[in-house]
Amino acid sequence: MCGIVGIFARSYVNQTIFDALTVLQHRGQDAAGMVTCEGDRFFMRKDNGLVNEVFRTRHMKRLFGNMGIGHVRYPTAGSSSSAEAQPFYVNSPYGIALAHNGNLTNAEQLADEIFRADLRHINTTSDSEVLLNVFAHELQRQGKLQPTPEDIFQTVTRVHERCQGGYAVVAMITGYGVLAFRDPHGVRPLVYGQREVNGQIEYMVASESVALDTSGFERVRDLAPGEALFIDSEGGLHIKQCAAQQTLAPCLFEYVYLARPDSIIEGISVHHSRMLMGVKLAQKVLRERPQHDIDVVIPIPDTSRTAALEMAHTLGVTFREGFIKNRYIGRTFIMPGQTLRKKSVRQKLNPIASEFKDKVVMLVDDSIVRGTTSKQIVQMARDAGARKVYFASAAPEVRFPNVYGIDMPSATELVAHGRSAEEVGEYIGCDWMLYQDLEDLKDSIRELNPVIQQFDTCVFDGQYVTGTVGQEYLQRLQDKRSDQAKANSDSDADSEDAADDLHTRIN
Amino acid sequence: MCGIVGIFARSYVNQTIFDALTVLQHRGQDAAGMVTCEGDRFFMRKDNGLVNEVFRTRHMKRLFGNMGIGHVRYPTAGSSSSAEAQPFYVNSPYGIALAHNGNLTNAEQLADEIFRADLRHINTTSDSEVLLNVFAHELQRQGKLQPTPEDIFQTVTRVHERCQGGYAVVAMITGYGVLAFRDPHGVRPLVYGQREVNGQIEYMVASESVALDTSGFERVRDLAPGEALFIDSEGGLHIKQCAAQQTLAPCLFEYVYLARPDSIIEGISVHHSRMLMGVKLAQKVLRERPQHDIDVVIPIPDTSRTAALEMAHTLGVTFREGFIKNRYIGRTFIMPGQTLRKKSVRQKLNPIASEFKDKVVMLVDDSIVRGTTSKQIVQMARDAGARKVYFASAAPEVRFPNVYGIDMPSATELVAHGRSAEEVGEYIGCDWMLYQDLEDLKDSIRELNPVIQQFDTCVFDGQYVTGTVGQEYLQRLQDKRSDQAKANSDSDADSEDAADDLHTRIN
Amino acid sequence: MCGIVGIFARSYVNQTIFDALTVLQHRGQDAAGMVTCEGDRFFMRKDNGLVNEVFRTRHMKRLFGNMGIGHVRYPTAGSSSSAEAQPFYVNSPYGIALAHNGNLTNAEQLADEIFRADLRHINTTSDSEVLLNVFAHELQRQGKLQPTPEDIFQTVTRVHERCQGGYAVVAMITGYGVLAFRDPHGVRPLVYGQREVNGQIEYMVASESVALDTSGFERVRDLAPGEALFIDSEGGLHIKQCAAQQTLAPCLFEYVYLARPDSIIEGISVHHSRMLMGVKLAQKVLRERPQHDIDVVIPIPDTSRTAALEMAHTLGVTFREGFIKNRYIGRTFIMPGQTLRKKSVRQKLNPIASEFKDKVVMLVDDSIVRGTTSKQIVQMARDAGARKVYFASAAPEVRFPNVYGIDMPSATELVAHGRSAEEVGEYIGCDWMLYQDLEDLKDSIRELNPVIQQFDTCVFDGQYVTGTVGQEYLQRLQDKRSDQAKANSDSDADSEDAADDLHTRIN
Amino acid sequence: MCGIVGIFARSYVNQTIFDALTVLQHRGQDAAGMVTCEGDRFFMRKDNGLVNEVFRTRHMKRLFGNMGIGHVRYPTAGSSSSAEAQPFYVNSPYGIALAHNGNLTNAEQLADEIFRADLRHINTTSDSEVLLNVFAHELQRQGKLQPTPEDIFQTVTRVHERCQGGYAVVAMITGYGVLAFRDPHGVRPLVYGQREVNGQIEYMVASESVALDTSGFERVRDLAPGEALFIDSEGGLHIKQCAAQQTLAPCLFEYVYLARPDSIIEGISVHHSRMLMGVKLAQKVLRERPQHDIDVVIPIPDTSRTAALEMAHTLGVTFREGFIKNRYIGRTFIMPGQTLRKKSVRQKLNPIASEFKDKVVMLVDDSIVRGTTSKQIVQMARDAGARKVYFASAAPEVRFPNVYGIDMPSATELVAHGRSAEEVGEYIGCDWMLYQDLEDLKDSIRELNPVIQQFDTCVFDGQYVTGTVGQEYLQRLQDKRSDQAKANSDSDADSEDAADDLHTRIN
Repeated sequence: MCGIVGIFARSYVNQTIFDALTVLQHRGQDAAGMVTCEGDRFFMRKDNGLVNEVFRTRHMKRLFGNMGIGHVRYPTAGSSSSAEAQPFYVNSPYGIALAHNGNLTNAEQLADEIFRADLRHINTTSDSEVLLNVFAHELQRQGKLQPTPEDIFQTVTRVHERCQGGYAVVAMITGYGVLAFRDPHGVRPLVYGQREVNGQIEYMVASESVALDTSGFERVRDLAPGEALFIDSEGGLHIKQCAAQQTLAPCLFEYVYLARPDSIIEGISVHHSRMLMGVKLAQKVLRERPQHDIDVVIPIPDTSRTAALEMAHTLGVTFREGFIKNRYIGRTFIMPGQTLRKKSVRQKLNPIASEFKDKVVMLVDDSIVRGTTSKQIVQMARDAGARKVYFASAAPEVRFPNVYGIDMPSATELVAHGRSAEEVGEYIGCDWMLYQDLEDLKDSIRELNPVIQQFDTCVFDGQYVTGTVGQEYLQRLQDKRSDQAKANSDSDADSEDAADDLHTRIN
Repeated sequence: MCGIVGIFARSYVNQTIFDALTVLQHRGQDAAGMVTCEGDRFFMRKDNGLVNEVFRTRHMKRLFGNMGIGHVRYPTAGSSSSAEAQPFYVNSPYGIALAHNGNLTNAEQLADEIFRADLRHINTTSDSEVLLNVFAHELQRQGKLQPTPEDIFQTVTRVHERCQGGYAVVAMITGYGVLAFRDPHGVRPLVYGQREVNGQIEYMVASESVALDTSGFERVRDLAPGEALFIDSEGGLHIKQCAAQQTLAPCLFEYVYLARPDSIIEGISVHHSRMLMGVKLAQKVLRERPQHDIDVVIPIPDTSRTAALEMAHTLGVTFREGFIKNRYIGRTFIMPGQTLRKKSVRQKLNPIASEFKDKVVMLVDDSIVRGTTSKQIVQMARDAGARKVYFASAAPEVRFPNVYGIDMPSATELVAHGRSAEEVGEYIGCDWMLYQDLEDLKDSIRELNPVIQQFDTCVFDGQYVTGTVGQEYLQRLQDKRSDQAKANSDSDADSEDAADDLHTRIN
Repeated sequence: MCGIVGIFARSYVNQTIFDALTVLQHRGQDAAGMVTCEGDRFFMRKDNGLVNEVFRTRHMKRLFGNMGIGHVRYPTAGSSSSAEAQPFYVNSPYGIALAHNGNLTNAEQLADEIFRADLRHINTTSDSEVLLNVFAHELQRQGKLQPTPEDIFQTVTRVHERCQGGYAVVAMITGYGVLAFRDPHGVRPLVYGQREVNGQIEYMVASESVALDTSGFERVRDLAPGEALFIDSEGGLHIKQCAAQQTLAPCLFEYVYLARPDSIIEGISVHHSRMLMGVKLAQKVLRERPQHDIDVVIPIPDTSRTAALEMAHTLGVTFREGFIKNRYIGRTFIMPGQTLRKKSVRQKLNPIASEFKDKVVMLVDDSIVRGTTSKQIVQMARDAGARKVYFASAAPEVRFPNVYGIDMPSATELVAHGRSAEEVGEYIGCDWMLYQDLEDLKDSIRELNPVIQQFDTCVFDGQYVTGTVGQEYLQRLQDKRSDQAKANSDSDADSEDAADDLHTRIN
Repeated sequence: MCGIVGIFARSYVNQTIFDALTVLQHRGQDAAGMVTCEGDRFFMRKDNGLVNEVFRTRHMKRLFGNMGIGHVRYPTAGSSSSAEAQPFYVNSPYGIALAHNGNLTNAEQLADEIFRADLRHINTTSDSEVLLNVFAHELQRQGKLQPTPEDIFQTVTRVHERCQGGYAVVAMITGYGVLAFRDPHGVRPLVYGQREVNGQIEYMVASESVALDTSGFERVRDLAPGEALFIDSEGGLHIKQCAAQQTLAPCLFEYVYLARPDSIIEGISVHHSRMLMGVKLAQKVLRERPQHDIDVVIPIPDTSRTAALEMAHTLGVTFREGFIKNRYIGRTFIMPGQTLRKKSVRQKLNPIASEFKDKVVMLVDDSIVRGTTSKQIVQMARDAGARKVYFASAAPEVRFPNVYGIDMPSATELVAHGRSAEEVGEYIGCDWMLYQDLEDLKDSIRELNPVIQQFDTCVFDGQYVTGTVGQEYLQRLQDKRSDQAKANSDSDADSEDAADDLHTRIN
């Protein structure tokens, strides 16, 4: 997963992009990048690290220009080097920089095609570089000395025709303007807003509306699936539907876990959808165990807090903070002659024993992926004296890999892959395992905006909205993962440079 | 405020100190330091920055030894340079390293005395350096080639006699052992624990019990006021009361705001005390406005969440998360030709509008200091559509400076200094300003451990438990602050490189 | 001026490129870069700084592959940012990296042409980026899925047709091989060599033969003017004359000053040519002042030592080291409230007074450019007690700017521009100013290889071998310099951190 | 070996100390440090690295004050960590900083004594820390609240009584002034000078007179053996002979190799002494082989150039530069799976073949230590085509370790230890091995200042001027070396980050 932003303003945009990326940092802590444009010159800075680390005063000083794009990257299989930080750039035609959030499922085939058709060399394993070159190739084919918005939209149409997957894209063409577009299923979010400064309109597009809020842009609306938005160098706004066919099928996981609660996606408050998830979990409890003996509902911080609170309200049960999250994440140094200590969830969470002592506790998490963390948390609850430990997941069983840009383990690593809820409960050691029903999850969102009828539910049911995700692709994905895992275990112990790409994050 | 830790183990302690400091990081993010001891050699690393930044693999590799002490520093007036990072070190007698949490109110006079008596030079403005030299001088006066635990306790007694203020101290004497002691009023917390490794006992002392938890130490108890604990180089534990007189008067602010909720201080769960604060706030609401019209209770994250939740429970009112805290804090770059943008609370908090819209909201914070942030938050609530905005503070009116190690503005900068609750409410723009009563706050703690009868309440009532804090001292404090403020505004804004900049350090 | 290297080997080449660049470091200390190629992947590292600073272990670890090119840059007007470090890269066609030593005199026109013809965007002011794009455009026009050596040579022919100036180029085409070529006048040097490793031949091309020596390559020969050399991915060596017309007119300044004395350029030992320059200077002395009163010949270290020694031999006069060069160059810090001290030659040279005291000294330098340093040196000699100070320059009067890649002041800043030798002598304050005759300088080289009949002598006589260097171009050059000078004086003095700042970096 | 400087001025001294250290950099490239004093505050910066690397703008900005001392360190056995960079500091009495050049031969005994007498802890293996603590202890024993110059001189007298070895010292006492003193045999050099600025006198003491020259100080004279110089805080100069007995016995190696040629030591131009060494070598040639067949004299750059030139003059033989020294030193990276390439002299020197081809060459070096480099150089000369290779050393056979501060291999590693000149010649593979006679070397210096009758000649004849260097001490030295060598080979190859790594530093 990643976060993207594109801005057209009337004064330097480096600080505004920086601010937006900071607010989108939860979407990727692995790398950050920015390209600005002044006159016919691009200025770029990108590297591994947090936004705050990548952009220092000396870099900001040289990021000139009133338009620009930015990116924060979540590490995905095989793309952790700084050479693969985004945005990417090609100098032909015009000079184009591009960054995207999502994943192309036919990237390898495309790379091959663009080499054959255009001799374009792809130097990384990043599908963003592929996407950029497809775009560049199609734009070049238009052959204009000065591309019009229409030329650019035509190019987007060609990109939609050729690229499969989920993608939300920002791009910039030297001297011409800022472009943004979204795949024909609207899997990945993209929203735009505007603000008036000294009587002139400025625009921002971003992955989430919180990025607009922070810099005083007012949210206008989400881009529609397949739609493209172009702000020309004069500040003129052009919007066009570029996909032949389009269906809105947003990613459920944005609501479950990825997005910030204060974001509005597809007109829906993420916060509210999470409240509804809690309500529906409570209703399932009441359906399944009307006489339940739950004493206290305790969230696994931070994401699940909203759902847990409403679940408790609905159940009429006490809600308590029973786990304290360590805000400052430590590190384990490997000293000569020592062996690596096992990483424990205890470095991340500390229980408040009195909230568990002799109680029947319902733990609530947003979802369960591998199950290893959940297992440790259940044990912590028991060690703290809980009489019984129940575990609720605001999302249904995660059983299939995601191919639209969320980095998840391969199927075989997913605890619910081939396991029933009961079996998962057994695995993680709880006394009752409660999963949200998929329809309930959909309803948590649909009820807030009935327009949305379809979702990308692939991780739950293995249905891929773009249709053509074959077994072969999934196998390759799994292999890549294994290779990556192996590479990591081979890698040198002294990762002190790696320290700033540590995602020991909890979720 | 600062965090300290001291460890005696049977294998290298650098990682354990690192882990403890990480868990204590909330007590100070300004600087970090560690000294370890192997044989008759000290190894030190300290610098400005977070624990994670200060200690890299290359530093850890050279921090040998089975005993050590560590420190994280909160910046206080006049001590932000890396030269003043702790621990401090003197080579005479024996080689002693020391770190402390707190503040001496007679530091200047002591510095003068030790120069006259012992020609010892104090090179910084840190009272830790003074404390270390008083200790060193008194230990040297014992004149032993090999100091016994008794010699060391005698020295602590002399320190208690000479030093005024609040202090919790860890120290290490080359080749002899690790020492910890606490001022005769027990203003600043200090707890110790032990663990068994391969049949041998290891000890840790720390500012908060969470540091014990993380590394598997079991909390034994808090050190008593005036008490000292010494672990000799064989691992023998020695404890002695070293103060002629002692009164337990712990700092109320540890419970209100400073400590982690999962810590146990003086046998009291901080989390529970905060719950009680919420209950008592609710009771005050019911006392004052039995017919209150509060629709929703909303905490200002993160500290006040516990109190707010119980307040809502007690009132029978809905509790909601209405503000989202930005986990990643941005930065404002000053570009050539630009002026500094005013820092806004919006960079830290984002409201979820729907939770405010048309509602009477009771905002809850742990305390109010300057009032400027509260003012902006109230405005944000109004902008989000709140019908009325009430504001509750879990702590009473903060009206006087703290002289025991909590860095607070001078009296004149405190919004409640010379203002009634109503006037503060007016200042911050809320419709109802509700402060906790001081007795209620005390009760929130006392009820959980009736042994405690007295507290350091100075910031609320101007009563200084150590007695001798005169007007002159407070004036000097205020002046220092003003000078500091001025110096800061003069200094270059771009301090990003300062962290790795060690210079003026002489210790 | 710059140094370049290209290598094709049978094992990783990063260390060999590093070694070669270190040996070529005298040709440019401003920036360094390397691109290697493994399979169809490029790996790049470039930045401002010395070779030793730019390439650290963490970079070297990622520079995979058995072929590669490298570059060290001398700062020229308008190209001091790390964004303009070489090699440059374009991804279309094939992926091409290129680095060069020299200068194109029609770069602006070319940039314009390639934008119009191919929509290629040039993002820097570097003519290397222009040269690369001309090459890329012409190669793309061939339209081959797999370019043959012949295709590549045709492309070089087109480059020769379009580009004017002096250039020695190394380039690499992903998956295809390493290319090197030299402008049709052979202004800038380029030599190649080979070595056998485990029965297989490996090749290196480099600016100077010393780079071959250090890594055990045997010098084969200089590339001829207009000639191109291509080593394909199998290690096959292809060489072809690609220029319609060619004339060997090497730059005289390589022999005078730029090249290392132990290099062989055009079959001529640079060391020997400098010896001959000294002999000819002596002969001129004897011609002009047969009764000269020179007591001692003293070189200005280091370059002129060879010439000075032979001059002394020929004159039968004592040769002495009278100046000691500071190997470690200091820096002047600008403290707040201080003004910059004038940089003095004293920071670089220290006289041994006794070698000057009461003597008639003949100082020898390789050349005189601005004259300011010479003036200070003459004064130092006088201060040290010299009775008379004579000054000999191994090169004739430098009166015109260089347009083939040597960064020199504009005409008006050259002390000999519009001044006779006597007037220069007056300016620098010596008692006798002795310049080498241009014909003597040519003979110093020609006598060692009579094949060479022509030279690039532009800085001495304003004759530009490429013909078309008009007044307009020279004026622009002068303007750029003035702008640059101004920009530099505006820039912040403390550029110490600039080195790790990569901005517009593209790969 | 090390370089030291102390300055008392009327304005900030940081830049002047920086300049002096830069000029003294040849005496030590391993670490650098500076302490300045303003009012009663010390400011310190020290670290591993070159002067230019250790002091950046951010450090310089904080080195306040009009007096200060500085140090550059040559790495010696067992003291390569940054914790042992000088100056050292103790806070009792008064605050004293000290740096020295030399070595104490009774450091271990002293460390023991000062612990027993004063409980002072020595935290490093540096004898500078010992020397400082002896000084501090003796000054403290005077017990003055304000020490007078006389008190300080008395303290120096005590230091002379207790310390054995060779040492030149600069020190600073907070608020009182700058002190310098030299051991009673004057083994290590120390010179002082003065300059007038705005009518006020400023003083500098330094290891070599070149440091005075660069900053415009005029050399007054060398300090006499045992003499101390103190500049009080008012700028008053006090000088006193503090040793009961003293004999001037300067180190011969300063003239042979250590010092810069443009320095004046004991009134003798180092340059001139080297010229005489060349003359005497020539005379020995003529004595031993009146019919010698030497075609050309070639120096091994850089130190031996002066001697070689005069040797050639005296012999009437051609002098030529036959080796080119690489100014930029490379590095060998150890890649995963590769083994370390053997370091070759070829990375440092490149021969000009034509100067050797078919000639009988006399190579001249300043001295021969291990012989391994000489051996490779002889081979290079043969490879370049020399008919015969002779080798002259301007210093006699080096057969014994140095104990006065020059880091040399232990006896068994010295090629001439237990070998005759012929045997050394055989070892290094030359056709004639010519060593300077010890008396000739002494005469090269004595003739320029007949006052000097004695020298420290220990490396040549094993005679230690301080008398008491026993076999036991030498054995310990040898052991330490072996341990160190072992430790180094164990240590990780990638020390690139070590420079900014400060840790174990405690001062």
